[in-house]
Amino acid sequence: MTIASNSASKRRTVSLQEASLLEGPILLLRRIRGFHHRRSLMWFACVPLALFGLGVFNLSAHAADLPELNAAFLANNLWLLIATILVIFMNAGFAMVEAGMCRQKNAVNILAKNLFVFALAVTAYWFVGYSLMYGNAVTDGWLYFNGLFFDPAVSPELIGEGGLVPTIDFLFQAAFAGTAATIVSGLVAERVKFGEFVVFSLVLTAVIYPVSGSWQWNGGWLSDLGFIDFAGSSIVHSVGAWAGLVGAMLLGPRIGKFVGGKAQAMPGHNMAIATLGALILWIGWYGFNPGSQLAMDQWVPYVAVTTTLAAAGGAIGATIVSTVTSGKPDLTMIINGILAGLVSITAGCANLTMAGAWLAGLVGGVIVVFSVSALDSLGIDDPVGAFSVHGVCGIWGTLVIGLWGFDIQGDGSALGLFVGGGFSQLWYQFIGCAAYGIWTVITCWVAWKLIGSFFGGIRVSESEEISGLDIGEHGMEAYPDFASAGN
Amino acid sequence: MTIASNSASKRRTVSLQEASLLEGPILLLRRIRGFHHRRSLMWFACVPLALFGLGVFNLSAHAADLPELNAAFLANNLWLLIATILVIFMNAGFAMVEAGMCRQKNAVNILAKNLFVFALAVTAYWFVGYSLMYGNAVTDGWLYFNGLFFDPAVSPELIGEGGLVPTIDFLFQAAFAGTAATIVSGLVAERVKFGEFVVFSLVLTAVIYPVSGSWQWNGGWLSDLGFIDFAGSSIVHSVGAWAGLVGAMLLGPRIGKFVGGKAQAMPGHNMAIATLGALILWIGWYGFNPGSQLAMDQWVPYVAVTTTLAAAGGAIGATIVSTVTSGKPDLTMIINGILAGLVSITAGCANLTMAGAWLAGLVGGVIVVFSVSALDSLGIDDPVGAFSVHGVCGIWGTLVIGLWGFDIQGDGSALGLFVGGGFSQLWYQFIGCAAYGIWTVITCWVAWKLIGSFFGGIRVSESEEISGLDIGEHGMEAYPDFASAGN
Amino acid sequence: MTIASNSASKRRTVSLQEASLLEGPILLLRRIRGFHHRRSLMWFACVPLALFGLGVFNLSAHAADLPELNAAFLANNLWLLIATILVIFMNAGFAMVEAGMCRQKNAVNILAKNLFVFALAVTAYWFVGYSLMYGNAVTDGWLYFNGLFFDPAVSPELIGEGGLVPTIDFLFQAAFAGTAATIVSGLVAERVKFGEFVVFSLVLTAVIYPVSGSWQWNGGWLSDLGFIDFAGSSIVHSVGAWAGLVGAMLLGPRIGKFVGGKAQAMPGHNMAIATLGALILWIGWYGFNPGSQLAMDQWVPYVAVTTTLAAAGGAIGATIVSTVTSGKPDLTMIINGILAGLVSITAGCANLTMAGAWLAGLVGGVIVVFSVSALDSLGIDDPVGAFSVHGVCGIWGTLVIGLWGFDIQGDGSALGLFVGGGFSQLWYQFIGCAAYGIWTVITCWVAWKLIGSFFGGIRVSESEEISGLDIGEHGMEAYPDFASAGN
Repeated sequence: MTIASNSASKRRTVSLQEASLLEGPILLLRRIRGFHHRRSLMWFACVPLALFGLGVFNLSAHAADLPELNAAFLANNLWLLIATILVIFMNAGFAMVEAGMCRQKNAVNILAKNLFVFALAVTAYWFVGYSLMYGNAVTDGWLYFNGLFFDPAVSPELIGEGGLVPTIDFLFQAAFAGTAATIVSGLVAERVKFGEFVVFSLVLTAVIYPVSGSWQWNGGWLSDLGFIDFAGSSIVHSVGAWAGLVGAMLLGPRIGKFVGGKAQAMPGHNMAIATLGALILWIGWYGFNPGSQLAMDQWVPYVAVTTTLAAAGGAIGATIVSTVTSGKPDLTMIINGILAGLVSITAGCANLTMAGAWLAGLVGGVIVVFSVSALDSLGIDDPVGAFSVHGVCGIWGTLVIGLWGFDIQGDGSALGLFVGGGFSQLWYQFIGCAAYGIWTVITCWVAWKLIGSFFGGIRVSESEEISGLDIGEHGMEAYPDFASAGN
Repeated sequence: MTIASNSASKRRTVSLQEASLLEGPILLLRRIRGFHHRRSLMWFACVPLALFGLGVFNLSAHAADLPELNAAFLANNLWLLIATILVIFMNAGFAMVEAGMCRQKNAVNILAKNLFVFALAVTAYWFVGYSLMYGNAVTDGWLYFNGLFFDPAVSPELIGEGGLVPTIDFLFQAAFAGTAATIVSGLVAERVKFGEFVVFSLVLTAVIYPVSGSWQWNGGWLSDLGFIDFAGSSIVHSVGAWAGLVGAMLLGPRIGKFVGGKAQAMPGHNMAIATLGALILWIGWYGFNPGSQLAMDQWVPYVAVTTTLAAAGGAIGATIVSTVTSGKPDLTMIINGILAGLVSITAGCANLTMAGAWLAGLVGGVIVVFSVSALDSLGIDDPVGAFSVHGVCGIWGTLVIGLWGFDIQGDGSALGLFVGGGFSQLWYQFIGCAAYGIWTVITCWVAWKLIGSFFGGIRVSESEEISGLDIGEHGMEAYPDFASAGN
Repeated sequence: MTIASNSASKRRTVSLQEASLLEGPILLLRRIRGFHHRRSLMWFACVPLALFGLGVFNLSAHAADLPELNAAFLANNLWLLIATILVIFMNAGFAMVEAGMCRQKNAVNILAKNLFVFALAVTAYWFVGYSLMYGNAVTDGWLYFNGLFFDPAVSPELIGEGGLVPTIDFLFQAAFAGTAATIVSGLVAERVKFGEFVVFSLVLTAVIYPVSGSWQWNGGWLSDLGFIDFAGSSIVHSVGAWAGLVGAMLLGPRIGKFVGGKAQAMPGHNMAIATLGALILWIGWYGFNPGSQLAMDQWVPYVAVTTTLAAAGGAIGATIVSTVTSGKPDLTMIINGILAGLVSITAGCANLTMAGAWLAGLVGGVIVVFSVSALDSLGIDDPVGAFSVHGVCGIWGTLVIGLWGFDIQGDGSALGLFVGGGFSQLWYQFIGCAAYGIWTVITCWVAWKLIGSFFGGIRVSESEEISGLDIGEHGMEAYPDFASAGN
């Protein structure tokens, strides 16, 4: 059983032993399939297609006798629509950051992954994910399901209460699911097969992410416990990062990344688009965090301010540390510092003071610089620093509520240890971080293994990796009119 | 009479015979002009300038005694403003997609066209286009006119009813006019003269697009007939595509595009910006489609969802088909699949179920792949696939309402043939598609011919085309610090 | 005392004489510092950090007993939030325009400056700038201060009146402060030291910009006088431009810019991102200008229309003039024409008719072309034309209200000389332009001098400038995988 048989790295053979746990399901999968080659994977899409087709004839949304639309209904739904558009715009940000920070020869592959995965994520989340995440309880606190698709009907009561119409709630949540999938893309960049990654993304957005998301955001056991994760430092960012980390470890490092155990610099090919991507992500976060208020009220701008200050703090923290440690302010680190600051405030954006938010971001910016080095010394190859940004800072952002958080929208009481709130909130935050980590690592390990076994490995061949995935996976170049520097 | 005298292609000489129909107007034009060279064209701008100048002294908008602004008025106008900004942002998307998919040596030209044409389109649409499109009836159902400029005054009644202020209605529609002009740019790219294209854009946005637009959106004959085109699959996208197709056919293919009757690949020079452009267009479409509700209500998010699902379907359809036919998922096709999905839902975004929208997009994504091949075998050179995306899928998106559309915002009754609505809606949709095609082809053929005759051809010289339009038309390069790959 | 000791240019030694005025403060600064090298500058950030840390434990915003949110409150705050996001997005626009219009070897430096300076500007403005700009009067009409940080508490009265919550007002204003700092970046590009620029930005956004901003926008002496600057042609754009001009003159021109007194072309390295940046700025201006209404009402779309028409006019004016003068439409000039049009309408966007706005933009577009040439003949090196766009057109946009402005939101009376309003408004506008120019030039001259003296010059070494600031200041390249054209 050689999942990564076409790889040059010795490192990966270790993990193959673990696959024996999955021998049963893998043999079953092998028997039911009648074909081996990657192309045939695409035909699987026809199965959900047939199911979707049935929905064409089934009109569930139509004009009903509804009351006049009130100010709260209009403002809440308009704001969520705008927030959703901003979150969807984050796809452009991720695509530019990830492509810009990788090498030219793999740019088409990264761009294609980002474009296509969002299309798949929306489809999968519409088909089943939303139902698993926001459906009615099957097993109280742990599992939810509402059937396939969802019902977009609007009731008079919902309008009277100023509630969100189901369509905008769905679209906002679907955009979040897409974000989780995009984070994975950065960790497995420059060596994962396109088709296999695509299948993994489907599993992640259809099942893995929605099930654990419901634990908190659908009133599941973590929510009952008292865990706080306002906009998803753990639920979205750390889940995406853990999923990618498992992939990165199973794939092993890129050829040439570690020479004699020492990490080599593999600089990104286009810092202009990477910077643009960071600024687009910053903008998109104004949908991600303030949108998670799920209404328009006086707290939405407050969340926008804490988000901004944390981004600023992150940039400052990362720039200072990278200047002190390497002598010069590294643009890659400024970018990662901003993103680290934003991830660090995602859980606590409604529970920290403004200064607390700035400080959370600053610490996140410091953490990300050291985390990048730490992953390098562990021999884990994370091409764009995605685990440091979304995983490590996702955990940090979750924990900081237990350090200096307040119940700002409630009675203003202290939650964090350092502001007099005791240990309990920190403990809840720790439980949540651990739960998301354990769930994601186990399910994603199984998913990557099964996919790799079924399709004959998840890593491209050595020769393809050296010549670049753009030619190998897509038969084209990103910049054919430009001469290459030959590295 | 040699309109394209400086071209190398034999193919174009055929079309010169047709120009004899226009001999009268062309001779007239030649007599009234006293000069030949392109530069003098610019001075024409001084005529409208003088007219505009008069408006400087004429204050038509000022504070009146208005009632308190109600929730509907605030939400409707705020939403339309945001939708307008998103549609204007589509200019950036078109500029990046078109420039990225063309060759490096023509990048400045494409960027300059996209920037400048939007400035002209807004000006022309303000001067006369809006009046021709949304003015009072001159000939019932066919022609409208309200005088030059428009009156931005706000009445107490309008506020009471929560209506749109004239300024935002104008700006939203002006952005649509700009979109039609930008689509043309892609079809005639890499060989059209800058000045001649600019003049054509003025004619298109001032007259051709507004006149036919009024047939549906100002309550003209198509609207009376029962034709449905919610956001402009036919009215905007197919009109732009037909206008460009006429230009592309009159221009003939780029040098080297067809060798021995076989289409040659001319890969785009920058897939990073092309991908960014696609994602910006996706975002911009949330203004284009949901904004066309022309109010903020519970249907706006519904339209955003159908738009999203169609884009996802388009990406999936195009990716599957291009992988099956060429063996590998082509990034250009993923991009065009997304855009095809978006165009395919533009007419029916408020008349299809969610599954119906996804399927409409998927079929659009499939169509676009085959359409690109078909145009190649017809010997028509469409450098960025604009006719396939905006023309063919514009027609498809219009027709699909007649196949599985519903009257969702009305009584929920079936309109489409496949859902039990009979043939009549399909027939109305067909009439509309044909009307926009015939009108645009004829008027644009005349416009391109007259412009070509007046200025001595619409195509750059052979030597300029080979060395690139950036040097020839603009005297500069897009990337002077980078070494060229020499192709 | 050699502020620019490591520079090759003779030109700059002239300005060193002026520095003798500052000998006292410079000597003092030298004595109190115990170190010389740039890196230590970063540690200064620890001082405000310690102060910020105190705010972590101080919860000033929490849920109070507030009335139901009314339609005006919801619409006003939602609109301002969106406007703020658009203004923050302008950072991406500035980064792309400035980087694209500079040479490849300095791209990382420009991108890093734009990213980092916004983080610093937000932090400095939060710490002290907002208080200096919108605090209570210290010296009536001239100086304001409210203590450090600001109080985000929301009162029932504020909600009842539909007012803006303090958080969104702060964030909107902070984004404006960031814009002023970003304009400086363009003027000093390709030769300023990173750390020294960063310190200057802190001073500008913490003190210089807020103090003069309060004169008009906090009801200071200029506001009492009758000066009009709706969104900041003078207050933001000309202040940023003057601050940068002083920097550019103290730095002297780039090596090779002037040969034998004649300006040499130094073309930008990436016109694709420069064009994208211009379109992002255009979009961002819909936050800048209409957002400055500070409420959602029927005038917001009106301001969006005047902004659009001025941008269109600017593009047309600059294109015509650059075509007439140089024979070909220069893309750089189309971009600068659009920006010139936008700056030209920023002061008068609520005081000009639509035709008046278009004309103001057109004249701005004409001015910018001649201004770029004029600066070249004066031997001032403004790499991206920032002084022409933001300074000269900022002044023009302020003055035009005195030429054909109206009191549109008031009684509709004429203000401008050409529309029958007499000379008085033109005089107020002139006073305002002069006040912002004099204040900014003096304070920034002192600031640049002190910073230069303290850190041993503000200009990079000759060898660093020739090899590029990317390697020298940041130790990395923007496009390492691409071969350079060798110029």
